[in-house]
Amino acid sequence: MDIIDKLKWRYATKKFDKNKKISKEQLQILKEAFNLTATSFGLQTIKMVVIEDKATRESLVEHSYNQRQVVDASHLLVFCIQDQINEDDVNNYYSNIKSTRNTPDDILDPYRLGLIKMMNGKSKEEQQQWSKNQAYIAIGNLMTVCAIEGIDACPMEGFNPGAYDEALNLKEKGLKSVLLLPVGFRAEDDMFADFKKVRMSVEESVFEL
Amino acid sequence: MDIIDKLKWRYATKKFDKNKKISKEQLQILKEAFNLTATSFGLQTIKMVVIEDKATRESLVEHSYNQRQVVDASHLLVFCIQDQINEDDVNNYYSNIKSTRNTPDDILDPYRLGLIKMMNGKSKEEQQQWSKNQAYIAIGNLMTVCAIEGIDACPMEGFNPGAYDEALNLKEKGLKSVLLLPVGFRAEDDMFADFKKVRMSVEESVFEL
Repeated sequence: MDIIDKLKWRYATKKFDKNKKISKEQLQILKEAFNLTATSFGLQTIKMVVIEDKATRESLVEHSYNQRQVVDASHLLVFCIQDQINEDDVNNYYSNIKSTRNTPDDILDPYRLGLIKMMNGKSKEEQQQWSKNQAYIAIGNLMTVCAIEGIDACPMEGFNPGAYDEALNLKEKGLKSVLLLPVGFRAEDDMFADFKKVRMSVEESVFEL
Repeated sequence: MDIIDKLKWRYATKKFDKNKKISKEQLQILKEAFNLTATSFGLQTIKMVVIEDKATRESLVEHSYNQRQVVDASHLLVFCIQDQINEDDVNNYYSNIKSTRNTPDDILDPYRLGLIKMMNGKSKEEQQQWSKNQAYIAIGNLMTVCAIEGIDACPMEGFNPGAYDEALNLKEKGLKSVLLLPVGFRAEDDMFADFKKVRMSVEESVFEL
């Protein structure tokens, strides 16, 4: 597989085939790939919500600037951040390291306490921005994974996060939606599928020093 | 190739083999993959600086919390954002669309003018945050591409961007450094290479609605 050909194949698919569904195996790959995304310190303060139900997605169209790909795609992936990061999050993470790797507390504790201090030193807004950065890493990873697997996707910043949070009861889960990725398969008659990709030349976007 | 196995293979490599270099072909893949990263509106207000020179990188260690992977890796990739986004950026982008796709001005103009209006409505700080989000998408893409190509990488937020900008004369290019990605090959004796990956269970990080 040539990864560059795969990246050229992908595009922000606006018109999905309403009848084609991604398989259970493909969905599982996307879920595992999300979970394997690198996050700062490994803390994973991001979550992914997978929505298949058509009625739920239909109700989200009006909160998505009426962009129908959220309902026409096979599934809608909603990337979320934790509303806040507390000591329990850090402690749970270090318990996981300890049990996964059998690392003694006296080695982990300085890192654990340093991370708690760092998170406590951030305002709620700073914590959210920090988590949001990780959500962008995750969508960057997932778009590439989709391309490799031959799954079409449409990265979206344009939606009403507050309305999504309410409609999906995210607040009670301590989550806030930040990015969307409808996934599925491009419609056969999507004229954009055959459009030439528009990019700067590599020489314009990359400098060698 | 199983993408999940590849994602499990990657880790934030702190100890690189100082003698192994990525090939010219591999570097070209990373450059093209960066350029193919999806960006908001396709505007590409991010740039990647590739540094191979050892002396330059040695001088950056002190601005990287003394983390030696910036010099020990084969190459250092520095992800940058434009200091600001102006009308020329938008106009150049739309000229590129026009010449690539032969799209008439009367179709493009409303989008072009809308994007200029949107960018003019953002403060410099908002423009920079917007571009920074795209840099996180790019590093998410590049980490996955590296994993697929068997290239090790270490995503880094921990460095002094102001000092990097000065050392690399980025200011005169209208750029600001935001993220680092040393790339190369893990050292044979890097004990972290064999550590079990620590992640939440998929059930903890992904919800199906």
